[in-house]
Amino acid sequence: MKIKVINPNTTLAMTKGIEHAAKSKARPDTEILAVSPKMGPISIESYYDEYLSIVGVLDEVKNDDGADAFVIACYGDPGLQAAREVTDKPVIGIAEASLYLAATLSARFSVVTVLPRIKTMIEELVDSYGMAKRVVNVRTTPMCVIDFERDPEQGMKLLREEGKRAVEEDDAEAILLGCAGMAEFADSLEKELGVPVIDGVVAAVKMAESIVDMGKKTSKTKTYKYPEKKEYVGELKKFGSTTVPN
Amino acid sequence: MKIKVINPNTTLAMTKGIEHAAKSKARPDTEILAVSPKMGPISIESYYDEYLSIVGVLDEVKNDDGADAFVIACYGDPGLQAAREVTDKPVIGIAEASLYLAATLSARFSVVTVLPRIKTMIEELVDSYGMAKRVVNVRTTPMCVIDFERDPEQGMKLLREEGKRAVEEDDAEAILLGCAGMAEFADSLEKELGVPVIDGVVAAVKMAESIVDMGKKTSKTKTYKYPEKKEYVGELKKFGSTTVPN
Amino acid sequence: MKIKVINPNTTLAMTKGIEHAAKSKARPDTEILAVSPKMGPISIESYYDEYLSIVGVLDEVKNDDGADAFVIACYGDPGLQAAREVTDKPVIGIAEASLYLAATLSARFSVVTVLPRIKTMIEELVDSYGMAKRVVNVRTTPMCVIDFERDPEQGMKLLREEGKRAVEEDDAEAILLGCAGMAEFADSLEKELGVPVIDGVVAAVKMAESIVDMGKKTSKTKTYKYPEKKEYVGELKKFGSTTVPN
Amino acid sequence: MKIKVINPNTTLAMTKGIEHAAKSKARPDTEILAVSPKMGPISIESYYDEYLSIVGVLDEVKNDDGADAFVIACYGDPGLQAAREVTDKPVIGIAEASLYLAATLSARFSVVTVLPRIKTMIEELVDSYGMAKRVVNVRTTPMCVIDFERDPEQGMKLLREEGKRAVEEDDAEAILLGCAGMAEFADSLEKELGVPVIDGVVAAVKMAESIVDMGKKTSKTKTYKYPEKKEYVGELKKFGSTTVPN
Amino acid sequence: MKIKVINPNTTLAMTKGIEHAAKSKARPDTEILAVSPKMGPISIESYYDEYLSIVGVLDEVKNDDGADAFVIACYGDPGLQAAREVTDKPVIGIAEASLYLAATLSARFSVVTVLPRIKTMIEELVDSYGMAKRVVNVRTTPMCVIDFERDPEQGMKLLREEGKRAVEEDDAEAILLGCAGMAEFADSLEKELGVPVIDGVVAAVKMAESIVDMGKKTSKTKTYKYPEKKEYVGELKKFGSTTVPN
Amino acid sequence: MKIKVINPNTTLAMTKGIEHAAKSKARPDTEILAVSPKMGPISIESYYDEYLSIVGVLDEVKNDDGADAFVIACYGDPGLQAAREVTDKPVIGIAEASLYLAATLSARFSVVTVLPRIKTMIEELVDSYGMAKRVVNVRTTPMCVIDFERDPEQGMKLLREEGKRAVEEDDAEAILLGCAGMAEFADSLEKELGVPVIDGVVAAVKMAESIVDMGKKTSKTKTYKYPEKKEYVGELKKFGSTTVPN
Repeated sequence: MKIKVINPNTTLAMTKGIEHAAKSKARPDTEILAVSPKMGPISIESYYDEYLSIVGVLDEVKNDDGADAFVIACYGDPGLQAAREVTDKPVIGIAEASLYLAATLSARFSVVTVLPRIKTMIEELVDSYGMAKRVVNVRTTPMCVIDFERDPEQGMKLLREEGKRAVEEDDAEAILLGCAGMAEFADSLEKELGVPVIDGVVAAVKMAESIVDMGKKTSKTKTYKYPEKKEYVGELKKFGSTTVPN
Repeated sequence: MKIKVINPNTTLAMTKGIEHAAKSKARPDTEILAVSPKMGPISIESYYDEYLSIVGVLDEVKNDDGADAFVIACYGDPGLQAAREVTDKPVIGIAEASLYLAATLSARFSVVTVLPRIKTMIEELVDSYGMAKRVVNVRTTPMCVIDFERDPEQGMKLLREEGKRAVEEDDAEAILLGCAGMAEFADSLEKELGVPVIDGVVAAVKMAESIVDMGKKTSKTKTYKYPEKKEYVGELKKFGSTTVPN
Repeated sequence: MKIKVINPNTTLAMTKGIEHAAKSKARPDTEILAVSPKMGPISIESYYDEYLSIVGVLDEVKNDDGADAFVIACYGDPGLQAAREVTDKPVIGIAEASLYLAATLSARFSVVTVLPRIKTMIEELVDSYGMAKRVVNVRTTPMCVIDFERDPEQGMKLLREEGKRAVEEDDAEAILLGCAGMAEFADSLEKELGVPVIDGVVAAVKMAESIVDMGKKTSKTKTYKYPEKKEYVGELKKFGSTTVPN
Repeated sequence: MKIKVINPNTTLAMTKGIEHAAKSKARPDTEILAVSPKMGPISIESYYDEYLSIVGVLDEVKNDDGADAFVIACYGDPGLQAAREVTDKPVIGIAEASLYLAATLSARFSVVTVLPRIKTMIEELVDSYGMAKRVVNVRTTPMCVIDFERDPEQGMKLLREEGKRAVEEDDAEAILLGCAGMAEFADSLEKELGVPVIDGVVAAVKMAESIVDMGKKTSKTKTYKYPEKKEYVGELKKFGSTTVPN
Repeated sequence: MKIKVINPNTTLAMTKGIEHAAKSKARPDTEILAVSPKMGPISIESYYDEYLSIVGVLDEVKNDDGADAFVIACYGDPGLQAAREVTDKPVIGIAEASLYLAATLSARFSVVTVLPRIKTMIEELVDSYGMAKRVVNVRTTPMCVIDFERDPEQGMKLLREEGKRAVEEDDAEAILLGCAGMAEFADSLEKELGVPVIDGVVAAVKMAESIVDMGKKTSKTKTYKYPEKKEYVGELKKFGSTTVPN
Repeated sequence: MKIKVINPNTTLAMTKGIEHAAKSKARPDTEILAVSPKMGPISIESYYDEYLSIVGVLDEVKNDDGADAFVIACYGDPGLQAAREVTDKPVIGIAEASLYLAATLSARFSVVTVLPRIKTMIEELVDSYGMAKRVVNVRTTPMCVIDFERDPEQGMKLLREEGKRAVEEDDAEAILLGCAGMAEFADSLEKELGVPVIDGVVAAVKMAESIVDMGKKTSKTKTYKYPEKKEYVGELKKFGSTTVPN
């Protein structure tokens, strides 16, 4: 089985880290293809970045590289529903996977993520997945996505601090890492905090493996039908007309 | 005052219709500039179209043409939050404007829109604006966006039928037109159905006028701060680095 | 266009302040008629005051003074739905107007109001307008309505303190003034706090202007039909039988 | 123990019926005093009637006639929270009592009430009591309140029809009578429909008895404190200043 | 009238306390039969204890001892819906009774209960009764159920502390005792805290008396029908086949 | 890896069917141990059966047979939270697994299950997992659990009928089989209906495999701590005292 893991941003070092995390828990016979789109932001820390990253995500889903399933590896799950329109193969977002998984391991949990400005964005996402009653807090750090690459030591320090506060102040019984670039910290954090620490990349890869094993495909009857055939103009011309497979 | 009304799709005939609707109720001293982006889908009838249309919407907001406020004239309000990040001038979506306005004129109302596949998308939107208890139904027609341009007579017929069902079966006390291309039908429908029929384009333009009159700007302290300064690569290169004004 | 702004309490000094606020942002061709009812409490700080103030509000709506629209200028929106029954002209409450407006300018916001006892009343109101997820806190001051008239300096001091706490502790990105008597503080507060400060009187007047421009009327098909024809007895006799216009 | 049952409307025949219902299930040592206010509408079928009836309700609570508890006998529970402010003795609304009672006897239930126009009003009430998930439908009849007095046979016929639909179409497992004037039909309906039929007057009287037995009083620390001392002007002058007991 | 009060745990001293509380406010002609099941945990402080206690609860309901109604006297209301299936006589849980009663006496309230581990369990319960908006906090103490029997002085001390915090920090206007073993502390706490303190045992007994007076039975048409006739095997054999009465 | 699949009822033929379904999609190196408890109902079709079946479920979890994870194979997920207390190994319910899985494959879906009386029970379950907005209907058949064993042809016929209605009337985009005994019908139904048909047994087994692969355990810090050490009496004596592992 081949799973294409799409890092919606275009920072290759981060894509490598995501690939590493994905492979660490994938089954031996699962091939992981981790990619960054050819276009878009080097990191995602706003609605602006998030929405614009979707262009590259959809481009990577349409050029499917023979994958059996897709993982969108950014904690906003950018473009998830549209990706489900352009293919019938399973597409899993790392936020949804981490939330559903956490709900089977703990009664209540907190998300720890990057800059304060995305708190509302994550809360809306949590709500859209029906998890508003389970997520007790969305905690942020003053670090942006790239900072975690540049200064992992400081990153670990801040995650540890917010994680502790989540456990002690929020009564969180598990911690969800709210950024694909935090995968490498999961194991150490879990040991230090004494509660499950869940990285969405791993969670989504495992969920994708399960669905492929089950032979399930995305429902194509209504909401996730292939996009209507139509023209696109200008720089997005290539996104037009050919989306419906025969 | 100058209001830039952005039709997220690239069908100029439709943009003309939107311009006409906007001007019909704008104040004499309000200048309406109705535009289509230079790139993107000719119509929006899926998450795929919706997300991809955001590129063009943000391009038009960034090139602000000296506007005092912006209206996003597609009933999915595509890119609304991101648009609020790239400018501090008010940005209003036609869905949100129509919902808030309807809530002051009636106790419960239905949305009538295009293809069945977008029903879920509209319901999620309604819920995100806190209007789930007020909207009693989202009704669809088998016509796509462009069909309403091509065959307005058939369009009016179907809107009338669904509108009647909304009033009789849903107990709707107002009808919201769930597509910017339906503006021209509003007045006739209202007369025939005997309940307020609300076109979002007009509602959003009036709301934008009000906010400009009040001298209010989008809050820039946290969620809607200007996007973080960063590089974009490939075909989206121009969306990088220069977004923060001095 | 003529907008009748009804201050549900009977303190004329406060009605003058409300009139001043309304006129400050109304369009030049909008006539503002600000009134207090002939009967009722001198201020509103309980369910008791709120419900009893409705008598005077409805009296003022029925004697419409040729107005094209009505604004109910008390942050509990007392009698709003009943007012929509007795006229087909638009009736806007200052709480609803401020909430809908704030939702277009910020992701989350707090209300700052008078005595602690009305916190629950305001929270119920917020919830009824679908804004429970957007309002992060309802903050109170130990001052009653009249105190803000008597000692505006102290009023400004307390609003500034609670406003700061809202921004710093609630992460509020806008502040809503939860009492019609606070209008005069809006501009100074906005400058000091650096976030939009929204006065409901202005918001409601602008919303009323918009709806009149659009030629919209309240839906009369079901919930807001004219009251059933019937007798009233005793001191409320005059409220009986004549409510249905021909 | 003495319970004052206040019929918010001023139709004495109806008050007699309410008294009869209240006495039928009250304990032998409970004195029932059923009254109509001296002012207000002869029946309540709109927000307008509902709000204006509160004046009379509060008048009757303030002149407490030595009662140990109060019941507000109209299915909109008009003025309930304000009544809880003006006395520390328990005040029970017939809607809330019927809903809480029904929730202990059945998993889901429907309300059957008078004119269609009050459907939204009742739904809001149900929601405010936290019962939105339990109430599967609010059904209306084309009869107004007084019609049930005038033509009880037709009243019974319509209640039977809607009750049957509730059981068969809504899967309702109990029926709540959504008008104080329907009490007399409860027993026959219950026999015919085979599900519990709950009259709010009886439910509220029993709840009031229980609370008096327990020696409980309304909490006076914050929301339901006695109204602030203040002047009222005009025809409502007597409602001012003297509300706080020593 | 005879009410069988079932303490789901098997600690007789606690059952005695519950009996005492029940009798203290029951009417003179109400016979209280307080029992512990013959099997099960000596106290209930987890989902594990809660679910296993249901066996004994159902056993006691089926052997009804001629009771006219049942009260389940543990704040998780264990087995409540199943009990409603095996009898048509009213069955009341102490959590539900305390919540509905509190809602008539105060606008918002907190529950104070035993060990922190059951906080989520109680919150889910509160939500299932529709009271999530009324309950402002569920507070726990480090004491387990039996500790309150063993060291009532320390129990009172901790309840007083948490009760004070509820009033001061949560703005709670009433306190609900979240364990049947706390009944004895209710009166002293109420005096000290100055807000209603509600013991569920008393609340449930009074609610049961009311329903019996009204002659109401549990609805048997669908959800609470008698259990389907079937075999049970092994140690639970006796729970099989005979449940449907003729 | 060894997964113990517990069929909460004691009908061995059904357990065999569940085993077959579990093995059909399990990975080659996953050992499936399917068991029925030694005690309890032969089928589960009420709260009564559901609660009583928990005794056997917990017994099977405590005697863990060296399993790495557990699946509770009844669509009410009986005893799920308690099972998470008595072990730190993952425990997955088939309802939760099917719901989370369905949410990644379709926008909205319906559950089809056995007798009408359990509709409310399933709706409460769906709500507790945060899926109330995704599940558009819970459909029932007049067949009980055992009937599906006895007359599979009739079972298939009724599932097909309700499935079709779900697709056509509810706009369901996937069907969830609401009973572990329906697993065998999943593939044929999926082919006939043209939408994903999801059997919870398979979904739960795959989810359990994933979590074991990830090395995750249930959080033991608060809600799911091991049960408190204590005595149990009577027929449940063996459930006491020894639950906390060293």
